[in-house]
Amino acid sequence: MFEEKLKEFEPIFYPESIAVVGVSATSIKAGSLWVMDLRSAGFPGAIYPVGSSGGRIGDLEIFPNLRLVPGEVDYVIVAIPRQSVLELLDDCAAKNVKAVHFFTAGFSETDTQQGRKLEEQMLEKTRQGNMRIIGPNCIGVYCPEHRIPFLMGILGEDGSVGFVSQSGGIATKLATIGIARHINYSKGVSFGNGIDLDASDFLQYLAADPKTKVIGAYLEGTRDGARLFSTMKAVAKIKPLIVWKGGRTEAGAKAAMSHTGSLASSATIWSAMLKQVGAIEAHSLEELTDTLLIFQRLGHGRGTRAAIIGGLADGGGGNSVAAGDACLENGLSVPPLSFETKQKLSELLGEVGSILCNPVDVSQAQFRGLATLLQAIDLVVRDTISDIVLIQEDIEILLPIYSQKGLEEINGFLIELAGMQNKPIIVVLPPGSVEAERLRIERKLLAASIPVFSSMERAARAIYRLNQYCCRREAS
Amino acid sequence: MFEEKLKEFEPIFYPESIAVVGVSATSIKAGSLWVMDLRSAGFPGAIYPVGSSGGRIGDLEIFPNLRLVPGEVDYVIVAIPRQSVLELLDDCAAKNVKAVHFFTAGFSETDTQQGRKLEEQMLEKTRQGNMRIIGPNCIGVYCPEHRIPFLMGILGEDGSVGFVSQSGGIATKLATIGIARHINYSKGVSFGNGIDLDASDFLQYLAADPKTKVIGAYLEGTRDGARLFSTMKAVAKIKPLIVWKGGRTEAGAKAAMSHTGSLASSATIWSAMLKQVGAIEAHSLEELTDTLLIFQRLGHGRGTRAAIIGGLADGGGGNSVAAGDACLENGLSVPPLSFETKQKLSELLGEVGSILCNPVDVSQAQFRGLATLLQAIDLVVRDTISDIVLIQEDIEILLPIYSQKGLEEINGFLIELAGMQNKPIIVVLPPGSVEAERLRIERKLLAASIPVFSSMERAARAIYRLNQYCCRREAS
Repeated sequence: MFEEKLKEFEPIFYPESIAVVGVSATSIKAGSLWVMDLRSAGFPGAIYPVGSSGGRIGDLEIFPNLRLVPGEVDYVIVAIPRQSVLELLDDCAAKNVKAVHFFTAGFSETDTQQGRKLEEQMLEKTRQGNMRIIGPNCIGVYCPEHRIPFLMGILGEDGSVGFVSQSGGIATKLATIGIARHINYSKGVSFGNGIDLDASDFLQYLAADPKTKVIGAYLEGTRDGARLFSTMKAVAKIKPLIVWKGGRTEAGAKAAMSHTGSLASSATIWSAMLKQVGAIEAHSLEELTDTLLIFQRLGHGRGTRAAIIGGLADGGGGNSVAAGDACLENGLSVPPLSFETKQKLSELLGEVGSILCNPVDVSQAQFRGLATLLQAIDLVVRDTISDIVLIQEDIEILLPIYSQKGLEEINGFLIELAGMQNKPIIVVLPPGSVEAERLRIERKLLAASIPVFSSMERAARAIYRLNQYCCRREAS
Repeated sequence: MFEEKLKEFEPIFYPESIAVVGVSATSIKAGSLWVMDLRSAGFPGAIYPVGSSGGRIGDLEIFPNLRLVPGEVDYVIVAIPRQSVLELLDDCAAKNVKAVHFFTAGFSETDTQQGRKLEEQMLEKTRQGNMRIIGPNCIGVYCPEHRIPFLMGILGEDGSVGFVSQSGGIATKLATIGIARHINYSKGVSFGNGIDLDASDFLQYLAADPKTKVIGAYLEGTRDGARLFSTMKAVAKIKPLIVWKGGRTEAGAKAAMSHTGSLASSATIWSAMLKQVGAIEAHSLEELTDTLLIFQRLGHGRGTRAAIIGGLADGGGGNSVAAGDACLENGLSVPPLSFETKQKLSELLGEVGSILCNPVDVSQAQFRGLATLLQAIDLVVRDTISDIVLIQEDIEILLPIYSQKGLEEINGFLIELAGMQNKPIIVVLPPGSVEAERLRIERKLLAASIPVFSSMERAARAIYRLNQYCCRREAS
């Protein structure tokens, strides 16, 4: 389904040439930044800067007018004042451009007659010229595979997660959190006011795109609710679709009106609708990215039976209690360890000071050396009572006990173990007072495809969501 | 009320001399660490190491037996195997010791006849000797004012927040998060199995302690529910009391039994009870510390009318929408800006690309320079429509636009503004891809007493809790 979108969107996500309109040889403008970002990202096609100043930007000639560009132009990025956009669209039609992205703002989101009128005129010209519009009032397309960065040169690794976002700020956050947490994107798009191509179009494309395995969306509203509804329903049947709706409340909705000219709709209506179409609802950026991370890494649900190692060293008791609460309250089950595992752990660690049920506290290993700790972890991971293992590391406690070298060994071992098992290992690294070291370990684990969360609650919630989705898929 | 506790607990939180039993001159034992930690923390009283090895630790003599210590001993820290604790208690009685803290574990938390019996015998000896016990199976007392650190030398600034924790790990986390987030403690205690002094006793002391203004508690269970209930009721009348109950679920409760020998009780019963006694319930370490931070910094509720600056630069639109949702869904109100403020903002920023209602997006200031941005913030903060201002800074977006120097100026300005206004300014710094810079700014703001949160949701929830508490206080 939606296979026709692949060809239609080819010039948008894989253009052979991009013209950037609004570039200046003498002052720094958004257009100039775009040209430089495309250059340094290594965009493989032709880049044509356009600006009335003429002259050069870096080693590229600035053409005074789009019509003067010598080659074919697939895609145009527009960063000029709104007064000039209609004229520019005539130039685009003359050059046989396929798609135009308007960074330019000042349209319906200002809630003025003038703004709305301008959008109508833009649409008319676009239809006459057989072109498509992205925006206006947005930051456009992100495609790591084709080396198209977001503004300010943001460009992560190529991957399997696609996203659509009505907000450029949220889109940028998705991209940068992606870089930090190794959520790797196939494609992303911020479509702002979405007067031509909007959420429905991009969702259809991502559903068809073979590189995209899971789709995240930040939406504020739509002009065509019925179309969005039926699109989401169709898309969610093909790929997991996680939707965060902004403007669920009065305050949010008021901002959404000013932001992308979107009309409000209540939280309850949206929640009900998302459930009905089979999408997964997220309520914040954290929930959206947590869920995308777990879908990307685990692919399909593995079950909700969790083995939890709450404590690796001193003070693991309270952490284990809290971890048990967090997992149970967020939908996971925490079955008892098998008799054999319990017995082996007790031989390994002794009875005093450890908790040898589930959640497990293996802190007593610290008095017997690192090898004992690794053996204890291995025993818990291999116990067939669980589908998934959650391990909490308190870096500020582990560091003085095992030193940096020991931490390396522990996390190296987890990476190795995760590679050998067909059981996901998830690590929880709560923030504390040794952030530099914690972030170093987080990066190491994430780079090795181990999902990392800052709290047991967030990890449990994401895992539960994945499993809920997979159960529903199997049942339907 | 509870004033008699001040004198009774003087030897526990302000001992003139501490003996540490379980020190070795030749091998590193927990006792040895305690001696070194007390020394380097600058504990002002006498420190007497005790251990059968004799010899010296640093510049201190190790006494082979507690009875051989020459001076008076107020307080004893015990880190010897459980087999020797009864004999040690005889020595303590002979030395007229006031309080004994048992780091030693292996008692009722192992769920054995032997463990329970030993605890009974300890209690009997303590009563005969007119002493008090902290623990066993705990890390004891934390008192920055009297330079008593937690194990591993953890010691933050002296402050007004008191805490009790059944778990040493959670207690340590509270202390280290306190250091990181400038939650400054008057006193803290981890009391483990709590066979003599337990949560009720310490809560009564903190209620009476003039240095403590707000109390946090992590509890797993109690042997005397009725006493804890009436104590919490009395304490919550005197000072704000925030309680996180561990072991609310089956999995948590099972771990709690193994951890501190605590019996389970259901989440519903606890929630109802906490409500009835007038305590504030927290459900995680994050919620507990967020709430303590806001109570410490704001002291009393200021109202829930929030002015929100969702965006300071590029991409503030989506952030503003999300911020509005987060605040409204978590109990704050987001009233419209006054007509005057709106007009002044519009003159300052223009109509296009900013959101000039509330939440406010002042991103257009970036095209007019830093002074414009600061003026815009100033206008929003001074508008009398709000009781409190929440400002979200996206460091990864601000940094390339305003550079590090600009970030310094923006945050220096916020600190100055907060000092001039009788209106709290709260900053939200969501994690992203420039963590080092973000943490630097977080530290700067926290050091200047500006509360910082990692998400708008967490900030709103904490502010709402504070106001809810204050409204209830006024009504009662």
